[in-house]
Amino acid sequence: MKTLVIISHPDILESGSQQFLLNAVPSEGVTIHHLESTYPSGKIDVQKEQELLDAHDRIIFQFPFYWYSSPAPLKQWQDDVLTNGYAHGKADGRLAGKEFGLVFMLGVHEREYQAGGRELFSISELTRPFQAMAHKTGMTYLRPLTVYQFAYMTDEEKMDLYIRYQQKLTNENSESLASRERWVSEQLRQLNTNDLEPGAEDILNHAADLMETNRTTIDELQVVLDQMW
Amino acid sequence: MKTLVIISHPDILESGSQQFLLNAVPSEGVTIHHLESTYPSGKIDVQKEQELLDAHDRIIFQFPFYWYSSPAPLKQWQDDVLTNGYAHGKADGRLAGKEFGLVFMLGVHEREYQAGGRELFSISELTRPFQAMAHKTGMTYLRPLTVYQFAYMTDEEKMDLYIRYQQKLTNENSESLASRERWVSEQLRQLNTNDLEPGAEDILNHAADLMETNRTTIDELQVVLDQMW
Repeated sequence: MKTLVIISHPDILESGSQQFLLNAVPSEGVTIHHLESTYPSGKIDVQKEQELLDAHDRIIFQFPFYWYSSPAPLKQWQDDVLTNGYAHGKADGRLAGKEFGLVFMLGVHEREYQAGGRELFSISELTRPFQAMAHKTGMTYLRPLTVYQFAYMTDEEKMDLYIRYQQKLTNENSESLASRERWVSEQLRQLNTNDLEPGAEDILNHAADLMETNRTTIDELQVVLDQMW
Repeated sequence: MKTLVIISHPDILESGSQQFLLNAVPSEGVTIHHLESTYPSGKIDVQKEQELLDAHDRIIFQFPFYWYSSPAPLKQWQDDVLTNGYAHGKADGRLAGKEFGLVFMLGVHEREYQAGGRELFSISELTRPFQAMAHKTGMTYLRPLTVYQFAYMTDEEKMDLYIRYQQKLTNENSESLASRERWVSEQLRQLNTNDLEPGAEDILNHAADLMETNRTTIDELQVVLDQMW
């Protein structure tokens, strides 16, 4: 699976959360595409963008949440690139069958996004336009990754975000325990252990073995349970 | 009451619906402000925009519905002009107490905007970001004026739109029959009758008199009814 991350941020170098996530991007299978630095004049190369979309299976919009939506350059990208005939229209569009996800940062606490909260509406309500876009273009809308008040996050929360972000970019579209275990196990085996102390690779492989063995045991128990009923 | 109509449209001169509505704009009390022609470079004069907002009581966003939202220049305007400190923040923002409304044109039939329809979501759902903006800035969110498939509208539907648009710009925020009657009566009395045939002014004034008399009668009946219970 190839993932395209389209980032819109007016000042990405100064953004702690964006830099943190950029560091988490896996070295393979992910294309990072920052609109403001690709098109400083604002003029978008529509054909090049459509070719980029064609070459990827999962499309991610990544941005700070400005006035309950994306920054304007990403909106311009939508209006210019997702044309009638390419992304929708009479026949199935060229995005049909791909996956679509949002990754966005919010300056307000999560609890405010609900009836009675200061922001009044939930994230699911505020992102309806993106859901409608995924629907019209035939893409599967993924569960979004929302990052609330990055600056106040603890180190532990940041490490959790690091993993969840990598999964959002590269894991299959499943939040099942089995799927996440498989993903972590793969990551453990692929880790570059040259910089770690001697024996670290053995430990990582052992952890991966254990997870896979546990999974096999769980699967076998599940089969037994299924036969009992 | 003074109304500011902020229009975002990439090609307003070629738009039949925009030109139709521009013709309907009352000569007094309404400021028309087209972003793309005011700022062809895209660079927005924030202070000038904030002064414009200060000078008006009702703010209207008028635009074609692109990807379930406004065109990008209006989004840029929001991000640039509605700053923390001006439009929101610790104290009440400067927009608090004003009214806010949307006027937008859609290329798809009204019936598609619902569960089971091609667009999946209702207009109330898709415009949540604007409702949240009005909420955060302390503005009263008006019932939107939605124009579906203008090119297919009959002459009668267009005349109805003409009136509803004028009311959206200048009538008090009330959809009551009494309020709309009062508005029509005022319009009749203010009509420029120089171009009409002789006697036309008498007829218009007579119509206005009749409406006002009817209203007085209805109000009196209401008082009697209220006393009976």
